[in-house]
Amino acid sequence: MKKILIILFVFIILNFFLHAEDGFRLWLRYDLISDNQLLEKYQNSLIGIFVEDNSATLTLAADELQTGLEGLLSISIIRYSNVEDGTVVLCTNDNSNIVKSLIVPYEIEQINDEGFIIKTSNYNDKKIIIIYGKKDIGVLYGVFHFLKLLQTHKNIEQLTIISSPKINLRILNHWDNLDRTVERGYAGFSIWGWHRLPEYIDPRYIDYARANASIGINGTVLTSVNANALALTSGYLEKVKALADLFRAYGIKIYLTARFSAPMEIGGLKTADPLDPEVRNWWKEKVKEIYSYVPDFGGFLIKANSEGQPGPQDYGRAHVDGANMLAEALQPFDGTVMWRAFVYSNENPEDRAKQAYNEFKPLDGKFNQNIFVQVKNGAIDFQPREPFHPLFGAMPRTSLMMEFQITQEYLGQSTSLTYLAPLFKECLDSDTYAKGKGSTVARVIDGSLDEHSLTGIAGVANTGSDRNWTGHIFGQANWYAFGRLAWNHELTSEEIADEWIRMTFSNDTDVVKKVSKMMLESREIIVNYMTPLGLHHIMGWDHHYGPAPWIKDKHRDDWTSVYYHKANSMGIGFDRTESGSNAVNQYFPEVAKIFSSIKDCPEKYLLWFHHVNWDHKLNSGNTLWEELCYKYYEGAKSVKEMIKIWETLKNEIDKERFNHVKMLLNIQQKEAIWWRNACVLYFQTFSHQKIPDGLELPDKSLEYYQNLKFPYAPGIKPTW
Amino acid sequence: MKKILIILFVFIILNFFLHAEDGFRLWLRYDLISDNQLLEKYQNSLIGIFVEDNSATLTLAADELQTGLEGLLSISIIRYSNVEDGTVVLCTNDNSNIVKSLIVPYEIEQINDEGFIIKTSNYNDKKIIIIYGKKDIGVLYGVFHFLKLLQTHKNIEQLTIISSPKINLRILNHWDNLDRTVERGYAGFSIWGWHRLPEYIDPRYIDYARANASIGINGTVLTSVNANALALTSGYLEKVKALADLFRAYGIKIYLTARFSAPMEIGGLKTADPLDPEVRNWWKEKVKEIYSYVPDFGGFLIKANSEGQPGPQDYGRAHVDGANMLAEALQPFDGTVMWRAFVYSNENPEDRAKQAYNEFKPLDGKFNQNIFVQVKNGAIDFQPREPFHPLFGAMPRTSLMMEFQITQEYLGQSTSLTYLAPLFKECLDSDTYAKGKGSTVARVIDGSLDEHSLTGIAGVANTGSDRNWTGHIFGQANWYAFGRLAWNHELTSEEIADEWIRMTFSNDTDVVKKVSKMMLESREIIVNYMTPLGLHHIMGWDHHYGPAPWIKDKHRDDWTSVYYHKANSMGIGFDRTESGSNAVNQYFPEVAKIFSSIKDCPEKYLLWFHHVNWDHKLNSGNTLWEELCYKYYEGAKSVKEMIKIWETLKNEIDKERFNHVKMLLNIQQKEAIWWRNACVLYFQTFSHQKIPDGLELPDKSLEYYQNLKFPYAPGIKPTW
Repeated sequence: MKKILIILFVFIILNFFLHAEDGFRLWLRYDLISDNQLLEKYQNSLIGIFVEDNSATLTLAADELQTGLEGLLSISIIRYSNVEDGTVVLCTNDNSNIVKSLIVPYEIEQINDEGFIIKTSNYNDKKIIIIYGKKDIGVLYGVFHFLKLLQTHKNIEQLTIISSPKINLRILNHWDNLDRTVERGYAGFSIWGWHRLPEYIDPRYIDYARANASIGINGTVLTSVNANALALTSGYLEKVKALADLFRAYGIKIYLTARFSAPMEIGGLKTADPLDPEVRNWWKEKVKEIYSYVPDFGGFLIKANSEGQPGPQDYGRAHVDGANMLAEALQPFDGTVMWRAFVYSNENPEDRAKQAYNEFKPLDGKFNQNIFVQVKNGAIDFQPREPFHPLFGAMPRTSLMMEFQITQEYLGQSTSLTYLAPLFKECLDSDTYAKGKGSTVARVIDGSLDEHSLTGIAGVANTGSDRNWTGHIFGQANWYAFGRLAWNHELTSEEIADEWIRMTFSNDTDVVKKVSKMMLESREIIVNYMTPLGLHHIMGWDHHYGPAPWIKDKHRDDWTSVYYHKANSMGIGFDRTESGSNAVNQYFPEVAKIFSSIKDCPEKYLLWFHHVNWDHKLNSGNTLWEELCYKYYEGAKSVKEMIKIWETLKNEIDKERFNHVKMLLNIQQKEAIWWRNACVLYFQTFSHQKIPDGLELPDKSLEYYQNLKFPYAPGIKPTW
Repeated sequence: MKKILIILFVFIILNFFLHAEDGFRLWLRYDLISDNQLLEKYQNSLIGIFVEDNSATLTLAADELQTGLEGLLSISIIRYSNVEDGTVVLCTNDNSNIVKSLIVPYEIEQINDEGFIIKTSNYNDKKIIIIYGKKDIGVLYGVFHFLKLLQTHKNIEQLTIISSPKINLRILNHWDNLDRTVERGYAGFSIWGWHRLPEYIDPRYIDYARANASIGINGTVLTSVNANALALTSGYLEKVKALADLFRAYGIKIYLTARFSAPMEIGGLKTADPLDPEVRNWWKEKVKEIYSYVPDFGGFLIKANSEGQPGPQDYGRAHVDGANMLAEALQPFDGTVMWRAFVYSNENPEDRAKQAYNEFKPLDGKFNQNIFVQVKNGAIDFQPREPFHPLFGAMPRTSLMMEFQITQEYLGQSTSLTYLAPLFKECLDSDTYAKGKGSTVARVIDGSLDEHSLTGIAGVANTGSDRNWTGHIFGQANWYAFGRLAWNHELTSEEIADEWIRMTFSNDTDVVKKVSKMMLESREIIVNYMTPLGLHHIMGWDHHYGPAPWIKDKHRDDWTSVYYHKANSMGIGFDRTESGSNAVNQYFPEVAKIFSSIKDCPEKYLLWFHHVNWDHKLNSGNTLWEELCYKYYEGAKSVKEMIKIWETLKNEIDKERFNHVKMLLNIQQKEAIWWRNACVLYFQTFSHQKIPDGLELPDKSLEYYQNLKFPYAPGIKPTW
């Protein structure tokens, strides 16, 4: 009978392969374990589930575990009401005999309220696996972790896993508008079906919550930072409540963006001045109303006085005045303010890279306790490569929250395979030297450097209505990596890629090795063909699709490309040393010293900090011009190599996903050559030097590239 | 082994029920036949497939047949290279021995190039089923028809089916914009992923083509009638080509909307005057270019001089001048022009209902041979109920094409279960009396009345990026019904509903009976609670969501509600008789006489043609005011009854689709009560009469309803 069952399930799996390899299932696939020996081992040691306590979250955890095990093992999992051999016990009660006899207080002390302990052990002579959390959400996280062990073919015979998130708030920022367009969204449109909410609950909302819970994401900002006050009106709050009620058991709190001028737009007040008593009262009442719908509402994310958004400076007040006003309103309900540091102004002649620091550094210590200042990883804007933001380490008395961008606004959008973990890690591992060596950005964010307990990390979501969630299946890896690093920033990019590949594609060593290689190299590849050697912000106007280093003479300088690359007949690059904008001076001396020196500055940041002569010799012995060309050509060539690797996996990956990735890699190759040609031809008009021998010359003219237009590139305001 | 196989497939089916009942498969489900006796019969008589000829379309047909049979019958279907017992033979060759011996010339004469013949017969003592078409596309249509017989549990032992479409061009009009927004789209966004085309072929394009081919749709206009000239530039034509190459084998031709001012916008000309030689030449060259990409390009759909669109009248020319210019350019390639008659102008004080007739009737006989004039079913705009358009029958020397709206702009959008076949049929069956009794609209459209060979019918698509294609699963029935009626307008609404329910939900008699009842009554229900007794166009401003009979004082009168209902203290309704606009006079005398008479005019059209006193007695014995109230209340009450029926099907329908429909029915009920209350309260301000006894009074005030706002209702221009 077992054989028949196996045949049966193989058919079911085949069936799935035939019909449903569209990426919808993400990394939560639960298909039959392909290694027969391992399968038998698992089958023998996993028979049933016993849930000792009772809660909505524990019910979800047990259901997920059952679905997962039944899919992975092709057996019926029994729901025990006691402990039998092969039981997975889910529990949260320290006083339970099982917990007391299997887990020692020292272990429990190591986890926080969201942590979990997974242990293989014996209880009353029965071999069991316990998944324990102080709270039920820890158990749910533990269940997903345990399923991952099986999905990635790990030995589960001797488990002692103690895991706790290092950062407390791990949140997605959706830049979703109420009309379902998504700013910088490349995976269709918003997953929030506002029009039909609250009555119509799209089953997809549940899958969204499961996916997030599986990687420990515990918050979501539903609406765009370019906020719409209507989201705070009662009609929308009813809709928000429906989502909050759904997400609660998955440990996900809901946050909204607050439009600073809301008191005027929906409150009928004449001002939004944060020091005006009526305004302050309006926000208090509004917050009270929100909590009447959503008792565990998380709080507000605010973009103020930046890129045209209203804010406290409209009334001559400081950012801290606005933030504290909202914090006061939220404080009675334990709500939080996330105030973005992404501010810059065209009226300010100062280097854009310096403005956030100048604005916020003096405010350190003045923010209320329930406020985060949310800082992008770099001082410009989510570029393929940026040095870390100088605010990290510079505001020890303020809870700084990291803002990463998971959606690939500047990194190939949804037509490029670009694994972002190396980008995230590069920033997190950067040493600020704020308190001497070892003062990494990660330690600023996880609170350990300055002893903050309010800690957080945000990722601008790449999810959308596309069936596969992220447009490009490899985009899923970035959602996954963000969650994993938010939980534990000490994980390596390799480890995360390994997990994701095994869960998403295959445990076959060859597949894992090859796909891992593609992923791990992919970010460097895209930097090479887009913005090598520290170049930045030379993408297409507005939509940021494709190269446009020639953009100039727009209504604001700091939205042009020439502002950033400053190419001229002498050389190229933004002098941010003492002889230029002196942005280097915002870093601590140890860092500033390195970045300031054209000799010591890592070449990957060279043109970020220095205006460098075309003939300047680099470490390779090439001149800057030559090196620039080689980098562009190397980047484009590497995409071809990715394609070659992918082609070898044709028989290892199901047809649908294989073709999906193949078509996109072909687009990426086209785009890489476009980038290479356009940039080299354009910069050549300044260097007046020839493209080094051995490199094929562009087959189209600079003019051709300059004339390309993409009025309907995704992720920007649609035009009718 | 058979048993095991059956168990196996039952599991697979169950598996599908668990994971995939999201509506994506439409009516092409091919799940195991649930009736065991019938299954055995089918299994015994269907063993293999033999394809006598060779073409891309025949390959598709055979593959579809194989997939279908293997799913429906749980057996492996053999590909024969000859005729064996139980073979389904696919062929197109009249000279084949099989065809010659099984099909008589008389039968072949009855079908046209798209028709098919399905016959059960004996050949060389083998029992076979032949699916024959003069062309391969007929065979594909025949295959879908044959699969439908199995899906709907028909006896296939003695088949002689001879079927041919009555209308030649059966086409979907997508009102899809290049930025993927869809005007009047309620199922997400456009299915066309322009940005990634031509390289990225979404597998969904294939499913779209299959679905259309399965109901005989043979054309698709990819872009909105509010056209964008960019769609005619080479970058987009490359993308169009990719879709055309994909759709070709499914018998689907691609059409585009032509923006009349394109010669100026993308051609650099100073005018778009249709009599200007440069303009005429520009279109000729543009058409030539299009055909270089798509050799079987279908032609253009044009909305000109209507609702702000450019057109020949901008240059003092007539519609026919513009149409003939385009027709001339397309003629060498056998392309077609579809010129919309939906024109009206705010500057024209004439009753909007009369303007299209006035404009086009005098042009009869002046259009080139490859031109359709595309006329909406009614003279206003896709209302829940309209009398047929007076142009039908009035232009005997012109090929008139029907334009139906499948997307439910005015019929509950995607939150209402509204089966549109009765609406389509009501129009098609209307007698124009153009050539005496029996001159139905259907006979105008199918060319039989005036002996036209250029015949066509268009449906404004309700498809979008939503997983279930149409937002509401019952919206699929409208796509289906449009296709079926386009093929054969003599089918009844009941027959079509029966087919669709059996293929979509179940062959269980009880399910079919109940769902059919819901569907067949649904259109009358929505008329009752929205626009009973001939009321029209009193929906929400711009988005047309919800009731707004109070709309007035807008920038154009004919976009207000008061323009259409003309309620005052005396009565309500638009006097279109001789004493009013005399629109009735546009109909042939037999029809005009009936519509003109307040006594003879069908009450369903009463307020369309007459301004009627509140105390006027109707057939029921009620006064107009009473009857109006009763209709609104009856409509709202009927939705509750639909919900009751649906609830009884809980165990007959899979959970996912059951809940989907249930949630939407609950929304529909809320909306129906909203309509009822808002309209009764509003009209009461004119009638000054009380709501009849026994009807529950609205629990909210008129003001409440008037203050509701839906700035992000779907289907309109998104605002950032």
